[in-house]
Amino acid sequence: MALAAPLSGVVPPVCTPLDSSGEVDTASLARLVEHLLTGGVHGLFALGSTSEVAYLTDAQRATALETVVRTAAGRVPVLAGVIDTTTPRVLDHARSAAALGADGLVATAPFYTRTHPVEIARHFRRIRSEVRLPLFAYDLPVSVHTKLAPGLVRELAEDGTLAGLKDSSGDEGGLRRLLVALGGRHGRGRGPAPDFSVLTGSELTVDAALLAGADGVVPGLGNVDPAGYVRLFDAARAGDWARAAEEQERLVRLFDITDVGPEADMGRSSSALGAFKDALRQLGVVDRGDTAFPQVLLDEPARHRIGQLLREAGVLRTP
Amino acid sequence: MALAAPLSGVVPPVCTPLDSSGEVDTASLARLVEHLLTGGVHGLFALGSTSEVAYLTDAQRATALETVVRTAAGRVPVLAGVIDTTTPRVLDHARSAAALGADGLVATAPFYTRTHPVEIARHFRRIRSEVRLPLFAYDLPVSVHTKLAPGLVRELAEDGTLAGLKDSSGDEGGLRRLLVALGGRHGRGRGPAPDFSVLTGSELTVDAALLAGADGVVPGLGNVDPAGYVRLFDAARAGDWARAAEEQERLVRLFDITDVGPEADMGRSSSALGAFKDALRQLGVVDRGDTAFPQVLLDEPARHRIGQLLREAGVLRTP
Amino acid sequence: MALAAPLSGVVPPVCTPLDSSGEVDTASLARLVEHLLTGGVHGLFALGSTSEVAYLTDAQRATALETVVRTAAGRVPVLAGVIDTTTPRVLDHARSAAALGADGLVATAPFYTRTHPVEIARHFRRIRSEVRLPLFAYDLPVSVHTKLAPGLVRELAEDGTLAGLKDSSGDEGGLRRLLVALGGRHGRGRGPAPDFSVLTGSELTVDAALLAGADGVVPGLGNVDPAGYVRLFDAARAGDWARAAEEQERLVRLFDITDVGPEADMGRSSSALGAFKDALRQLGVVDRGDTAFPQVLLDEPARHRIGQLLREAGVLRTP
Amino acid sequence: MALAAPLSGVVPPVCTPLDSSGEVDTASLARLVEHLLTGGVHGLFALGSTSEVAYLTDAQRATALETVVRTAAGRVPVLAGVIDTTTPRVLDHARSAAALGADGLVATAPFYTRTHPVEIARHFRRIRSEVRLPLFAYDLPVSVHTKLAPGLVRELAEDGTLAGLKDSSGDEGGLRRLLVALGGRHGRGRGPAPDFSVLTGSELTVDAALLAGADGVVPGLGNVDPAGYVRLFDAARAGDWARAAEEQERLVRLFDITDVGPEADMGRSSSALGAFKDALRQLGVVDRGDTAFPQVLLDEPARHRIGQLLREAGVLRTP
Repeated sequence: MALAAPLSGVVPPVCTPLDSSGEVDTASLARLVEHLLTGGVHGLFALGSTSEVAYLTDAQRATALETVVRTAAGRVPVLAGVIDTTTPRVLDHARSAAALGADGLVATAPFYTRTHPVEIARHFRRIRSEVRLPLFAYDLPVSVHTKLAPGLVRELAEDGTLAGLKDSSGDEGGLRRLLVALGGRHGRGRGPAPDFSVLTGSELTVDAALLAGADGVVPGLGNVDPAGYVRLFDAARAGDWARAAEEQERLVRLFDITDVGPEADMGRSSSALGAFKDALRQLGVVDRGDTAFPQVLLDEPARHRIGQLLREAGVLRTP
Repeated sequence: MALAAPLSGVVPPVCTPLDSSGEVDTASLARLVEHLLTGGVHGLFALGSTSEVAYLTDAQRATALETVVRTAAGRVPVLAGVIDTTTPRVLDHARSAAALGADGLVATAPFYTRTHPVEIARHFRRIRSEVRLPLFAYDLPVSVHTKLAPGLVRELAEDGTLAGLKDSSGDEGGLRRLLVALGGRHGRGRGPAPDFSVLTGSELTVDAALLAGADGVVPGLGNVDPAGYVRLFDAARAGDWARAAEEQERLVRLFDITDVGPEADMGRSSSALGAFKDALRQLGVVDRGDTAFPQVLLDEPARHRIGQLLREAGVLRTP
Repeated sequence: MALAAPLSGVVPPVCTPLDSSGEVDTASLARLVEHLLTGGVHGLFALGSTSEVAYLTDAQRATALETVVRTAAGRVPVLAGVIDTTTPRVLDHARSAAALGADGLVATAPFYTRTHPVEIARHFRRIRSEVRLPLFAYDLPVSVHTKLAPGLVRELAEDGTLAGLKDSSGDEGGLRRLLVALGGRHGRGRGPAPDFSVLTGSELTVDAALLAGADGVVPGLGNVDPAGYVRLFDAARAGDWARAAEEQERLVRLFDITDVGPEADMGRSSSALGAFKDALRQLGVVDRGDTAFPQVLLDEPARHRIGQLLREAGVLRTP
Repeated sequence: MALAAPLSGVVPPVCTPLDSSGEVDTASLARLVEHLLTGGVHGLFALGSTSEVAYLTDAQRATALETVVRTAAGRVPVLAGVIDTTTPRVLDHARSAAALGADGLVATAPFYTRTHPVEIARHFRRIRSEVRLPLFAYDLPVSVHTKLAPGLVRELAEDGTLAGLKDSSGDEGGLRRLLVALGGRHGRGRGPAPDFSVLTGSELTVDAALLAGADGVVPGLGNVDPAGYVRLFDAARAGDWARAAEEQERLVRLFDITDVGPEADMGRSSSALGAFKDALRQLGVVDRGDTAFPQVLLDEPARHRIGQLLREAGVLRTP
């Protein structure tokens, strides 16, 4: 399906449920997609960082994307992450994603290598010219170790290379400056890149991003509570900022599930992605909450605490 | 004067005007304080990073603080930065600031040395116990190269060590989590640290911080347009978030003055602080816009561009 | 062929020559392997960072490795880089490398994801248990953004998980501590991991690493002057440290070729790898000096300067 | 006394013993200076990072420097650290150090502020022109968070601004390139800056630095075992690199004392400086091993382990 331009709303990065042998659990994944659609989301982002794309083999990536596209069945657009170190490898993923029916692509700057703004521009332009799908830049310095320069994003927005930006840089001041440069809260349509979509990946400050004029959000926590993020988005669209902020506060409290895995014992991927997946298990959406190897699994006390937090947030209603 | 608890509103970090020999220009500084008070600010922060505290000798620090305190004359409280590498050196500054009449102190974690959360806690507790003034923690990783852990801030808030936090970490998600933990938008009074003040130093996202429940802002750009930040604060207090966001957008555009000094020729301090000070010169508030040695001075084209931006933002009305 | 244990000597990371369409130029690659063997190297490292592994598709990786293995024909062992984000993806590369005849594997810690020492240990152990080839850990924080902890390396050396370490961390003090812990200059055979090989990737301080007890070196610059590194190694083995240091000095001067590409115009990969490859072109070893997309190519003045430096170092003798 | 040019040999950064109230213990400090001179050191560096300069008030700095100068009594030159955030504050320290009889100054680039190479050059030039003592640049990115660019160091060496460099950057490859550019192992006298002194602060790789042509070393561990570093230096000067490396290995093992303070409980300053000072206490040189506030003190098991390591290294001979 053609993407709306600009793309807006709640577009969660879809977790990838795994079975006991570490393979993609397609039945659970299909149920997760239905869970998200029931929650009212406006799009799906498959093969993102929250989808554990960096832990999936090429075959597993294809299985996951194919399952999301088939289950979504055109009800909402599906973006596909094409995450790899440099252009030639990203192009392989992009061609595969196009063949599997993705509606748009999401690519980072090159990583592992030492890169440069000139090379980053060449990278995005080549992806766009080789695979004719709308292209979103994914700004994720915590993984990529390069921050996309706002001037470069603007240039690539204005010349049509990029359809949008998924900003997970945490640089809210820089994001605000970009939004203002693109026309501000009321002027996107009259700005220099009227179809350009700005999505925040900062799930704890969505009300702020929307107040600043962002088009939508890509919340990892949206796997667990898609309806909550949709309520937040609707309140913001209605100009009811107090209600948006209250919904955000509830989601901030729920985000405490990502801290139940002790830092001394595991990395942040293990604790945060493990929490999202175990919450989905407790909600009956997926069969298992396991994260991919070599991540460390949450133990029983951690899982118990997740259940408590789900109840406190009103997401889990069984005792 | 006794600080309100929690301290709230617009509390600009006061620039330190210099004369042609690099000494504190006390007449210009006194005019700047009047300019800020006329703009309606709720407090003054002397000897902060924007005040070029790191460039001032101890004698110059004393002159600057004494001038601010004397000019403020109790109309608003004056916080004093006590910025140095470790506790023994900070204590010297703190005793001096108390003697000069400061109403509160602002200290960072230790820097230059390799430190630890246990040592940071000891640091703040010692400052608080040795000098009996309300103490604010200054979270500024770009200078200090340590991020204050939210758990530590909470602990020091709850046990009364800290009267508040000036958050310039840029970690808006972490700030939101702290605010929610302290009771959220409506619950500060009923939270675990009812008198604790949270001030953001992120001058480009003040509407967002206030929506999230922050008490106020410490905006460097507030030297140039104090009335703009006061309007932003008043709109937020009135719940008129659309108006707050529009005022913020105007200030974001004005912030472009900090980019007129080319990155290739100078550091970020030189360009940003130089822009604030030259804007004040063009507004007739201070005599000279020079920054302290070894910073690089803005050239004439840069100063011309600042004038244009001041006019576009409605701050400078003369042709 | 079975690897000597510990592996020692000069083991250059083999550049991957490309043709005008960006595909692996197997004829040039075969000539490069002969050039290295003629220079006297003791092993070959295919698909390392200097091989532009991060820019090669899976198909190109296979072509390059197959060419190196076939050309080496058992004269020296061939290590293969298995560089990817996490264990499942690395295992795909490792199985492919084993099938193509590699004699050993070289893997980094997980990257792109946020990881943890416990996860890194699981990662190396799983690779070792799934693919039965000697495994070298590749410590390259500039790309991986994690430093391997010396204690973890020791543990994995002593329990037989790792056959060796390629240290490109630049932490020479840490490397020295590891070497001393493993028995020091004279005690490796009597140390806790007698077969463990320590190779430095720091091509500018090889004399120092050998003096400290390292077994060998993996020098990118060794593509250009393999005989020079072999002379350095031989002098060190003979205890002639003054001669080793003089050879090293000549190679340090030659390393200036990596600076001819201006920083303002390209990234460090483009300038350093471009210099190695263009030097090989000027030496008549490979047909073209082009680096992989999206790297920026060196211009004619840069190439001219490389020629001068090659002549000054005595590597290029034609006028 | 006039400094030799270039300054060479072992120049330890002198620890600052404290009494039970945290004041400088001048009697212990005088004994420490005698201990170092008895060990054969070629110079003394007071008020360096290892001296806890960042923890000393201005009054304490003066007391410490005055004690070192008076005790050295012209037997060896005394360098004084003038460590502060920017030029105006550094100049205050520099004038004080000159008045107290220092023979040379050691300054870092500006820190805490965001700086720039142009500003760093202005900084060193101003210090040199205002206070007429030989000036050493102190490259310590772990504290200063800026790496001195080799090109800038060369420029300031060649124009006479700098008398030398204390390199604690850990970038041994960069140091080697600088040494080669200055004429290499044999050519300093004929190089572009014949009087320029290069001292390494990397106490674990001194043999390597001397092999590369460095003039000397500033070893923190040299407080504990000055005679060991002098033996290392003498062996290197005699061209006996095997003996130099063996002495270095012994000192690497002794350096394990810096790890006895557990990372979970204290920062790296506390554990490393605490170890040096407690070792001096056990050797009978100083009365107490306490580090300055807010550092965490070593506990009894840690102190016991230090004693064992001192005995194993042959430094402490009593049972």
